Amino acid sequence: MVQATTLPRNETGIETVVGILKQQFGDRLQTGASVREQHGHTTTWIENQSPDAVVFPQTAEEVAQIVKTCALHKVPVIPFGTGTSLEGHVNAPAGGISVDVSQMNKILAVNAGDLDCVVQPGVTREDLNTHLRDQGLFFPIDPGANASLGGMASTRASGTNAVRYGTMKDNVMALEAVMPDGQVIRTAQRAKKSSAGYDLTRLLVGSEGTLGLITEITLRLQGIPEAISSARCSFPSVDAACQAVMMTIQYGIPVARIELLDALSVKAANDYSKLTLPETPLLLLEFHGSDAGVVEQAETFGQIAEEFGGSDFASTTSTEERSKLWQARHDMYWASLQLRPGASGISTDVCVPISRLAECVTAAQDKAADLGLVAPTVGHVGDGNFHTLLLIDMENEGEVVKAEEFVSWLNDMAISMDGTCTGEHGIGQGKRPYLVKELGAATTYMAAIKRALDPDNIMNPGKILPD
Amino acid sequence: MVQATTLPRNETGIETVVGILKQQFGDRLQTGASVREQHGHTTTWIENQSPDAVVFPQTAEEVAQIVKTCALHKVPVIPFGTGTSLEGHVNAPAGGISVDVSQMNKILAVNAGDLDCVVQPGVTREDLNTHLRDQGLFFPIDPGANASLGGMASTRASGTNAVRYGTMKDNVMALEAVMPDGQVIRTAQRAKKSSAGYDLTRLLVGSEGTLGLITEITLRLQGIPEAISSARCSFPSVDAACQAVMMTIQYGIPVARIELLDALSVKAANDYSKLTLPETPLLLLEFHGSDAGVVEQAETFGQIAEEFGGSDFASTTSTEERSKLWQARHDMYWASLQLRPGASGISTDVCVPISRLAECVTAAQDKAADLGLVAPTVGHVGDGNFHTLLLIDMENEGEVVKAEEFVSWLNDMAISMDGTCTGEHGIGQGKRPYLVKELGAATTYMAAIKRALDPDNIMNPGKILPD
Repeated sequence: MVQATTLPRNETGIETVVGILKQQFGDRLQTGASVREQHGHTTTWIENQSPDAVVFPQTAEEVAQIVKTCALHKVPVIPFGTGTSLEGHVNAPAGGISVDVSQMNKILAVNAGDLDCVVQPGVTREDLNTHLRDQGLFFPIDPGANASLGGMASTRASGTNAVRYGTMKDNVMALEAVMPDGQVIRTAQRAKKSSAGYDLTRLLVGSEGTLGLITEITLRLQGIPEAISSARCSFPSVDAACQAVMMTIQYGIPVARIELLDALSVKAANDYSKLTLPETPLLLLEFHGSDAGVVEQAETFGQIAEEFGGSDFASTTSTEERSKLWQARHDMYWASLQLRPGASGISTDVCVPISRLAECVTAAQDKAADLGLVAPTVGHVGDGNFHTLLLIDMENEGEVVKAEEFVSWLNDMAISMDGTCTGEHGIGQGKRPYLVKELGAATTYMAAIKRALDPDNIMNPGKILPD
Repeated sequence: MVQATTLPRNETGIETVVGILKQQFGDRLQTGASVREQHGHTTTWIENQSPDAVVFPQTAEEVAQIVKTCALHKVPVIPFGTGTSLEGHVNAPAGGISVDVSQMNKILAVNAGDLDCVVQPGVTREDLNTHLRDQGLFFPIDPGANASLGGMASTRASGTNAVRYGTMKDNVMALEAVMPDGQVIRTAQRAKKSSAGYDLTRLLVGSEGTLGLITEITLRLQGIPEAISSARCSFPSVDAACQAVMMTIQYGIPVARIELLDALSVKAANDYSKLTLPETPLLLLEFHGSDAGVVEQAETFGQIAEEFGGSDFASTTSTEERSKLWQARHDMYWASLQLRPGASGISTDVCVPISRLAECVTAAQDKAADLGLVAPTVGHVGDGNFHTLLLIDMENEGEVVKAEEFVSWLNDMAISMDGTCTGEHGIGQGKRPYLVKELGAATTYMAAIKRALDPDNIMNPGKILPD
């Protein structure tokens, strides 16, 4: 485990608030050690910092009540969705109250005519898509984990479909949120576009619970396409694969997914998912469109791939074959862990301009090799975003130091390429110094906004901004 | 003219600042009456409120110098692009310095491989597209006027292509801006997506110069599609046309443009552009894609249109025919004015969920008829956004009162339909009360952000937020 900064605790305030909320919420306030620890679970190498209590509200009014009580006594409020975030977002470095929205899991409206819906923050993306299927609609953002939509909004999540459908920033139309003073606001109406004032929707999306707690989300939906096809193609090198990606994007082929697996990842997928793919860099693609359209897209991609030495090109509209391929992609985390049983997986998340992608991925592979680290790489390469997963023996201190060196080196490298230290996971606790390296003076205005909206720093303290 | 609120003037400060800037900028600071009046030009019925001086910086450093001087003496700074905004954005209700960025008109970089470019704020969208054409690229946002890209970012502009390509919020990747204290920041790197901290890019986009002055813009570009086709179809009623639009969007046809002209607008276009269109509600469409794709899109639309009583359907890939049709659409403002020579055109800008569009447009037509106003309507109907243009004799006070009644009624109506008083023009001076009606308590947090970043209220005062 890597130690996280702790912040001063307001013991009296916390004790008072826990007492008040216990009265109000009864069994819906929990203080047992295991539930608290589970709510500080970081799914990463940052140590667990448990909240003092976990409360399970069911309405925005209840959330407002909780936040007002915490505001009065200056006690931290840490929003919790499913706990699948990767940067220590749900940790409680100053203690406080974890607000678990899992009981706020209603789909409040589906407006098929407007291609939008309104959901509570605890609805997961899989639940939403199951609900939508019968109406011929889907919500495209797919970060892999079955995350809550509130959490996805809070971290500005994206994933494999972002190359076509954008990220949460592009798909959240409006929010209801409880602000740090306990007031409930709506950030926008349900119109598809608006020039009405400051974009509080986009300010809250990606703010990781530090400016308010999301209690309702209006999401843009898509019609399920008439046809979906997928394709795969092997390449002689990461560079060749990335060149093909760049050309595909420049040609304007509206790929719905374009994912890179490096040779080591392909080996892991072959072993774990019983596949027989050539163990060289691989691109996996998905096309959405009309029957004729997806065939045309796949053909055009095939021609581009050939130009860059692609081989074993195969495309299919068979649902079964497609599912098998994408299941293997979704299982990459588990498959990769099997490359080194017993090791922990530490994910990086840099994103660079696509013209720098090949250089960045290749340099990362070389650096990992230099350090003697086992580090398979997969990437949402249409966006220039990739994850090198470090497989680390956390008991081996020398190895942990090397992993830290790698992470630091990679973040710096991405920033030097006009990229970011985080394409989709967020800043959380560990990446705060990189945010300052990346955006410099801009972070002082972020801090000014934080102070203006949350003067007592009660909303998810110790995240995003330096203390 | 409708009177605009004036704000207290800081006479001493203004005099001092004009003196200092005159020394620094020489001829690039102008104080003549006509140049001042031109820079307070509102292109609308709000009266002119001229700045005290107009300065023409050439670099971000010069802008920073100007803002620092103004900050020190608490003098208003009003950013100015091309002056084509419609809501009094460039007016100077407390006097101050208009910062005209027309000399900051360099295209700094075109990164074809990344489909992005970096421009200074004074570059106009037509200049940019002329520059890009040879590289097979274009910037899709088209608000009609040949606006500056800085101004378009500041008002969160959109226009006819937004249904496919989004608005400025979706196409600005990063900004360089001079903040109210004169510090220069960059809001994001050039990566296609990012989860790095608060989204200052989206906070500045649409902030109408009230939080900072944009000095550089990184824009997302598109490849010029292989094929472009256009189509038109007449409908028996606005309702039938809107139903066809809704079905088109639900079907997922990736229309690049889908514009409504009501019967009166068609009449105006026939007269002005020498066309012979049936004088009933008309949809104009444009499709972007592959050769086969655009044909397929047009055919599918044709079938939908037929279901809703569409007639005179015609589609074409001929550049000449297409240009003629879209030129007529772009000339609608001038064509409409000819319906009542001598009248002034006052544009409304509501945007509602598309399922409410037919009802809203029809109600607006009825209301205008009740009030005896000549009011043709055109709309970016794929987004639920439409402009009813009131043709008003500004010398006739009774008519001006009726026009004000109409505007107020329409804004309230749109808000009651979960829509917005402004789809793309912005709040500016006149719509400030509607912003409060629309977003209620959220506006108090907008005001808190404004105070935090601009405590002396020097950046474009009297816009967006109530005084």
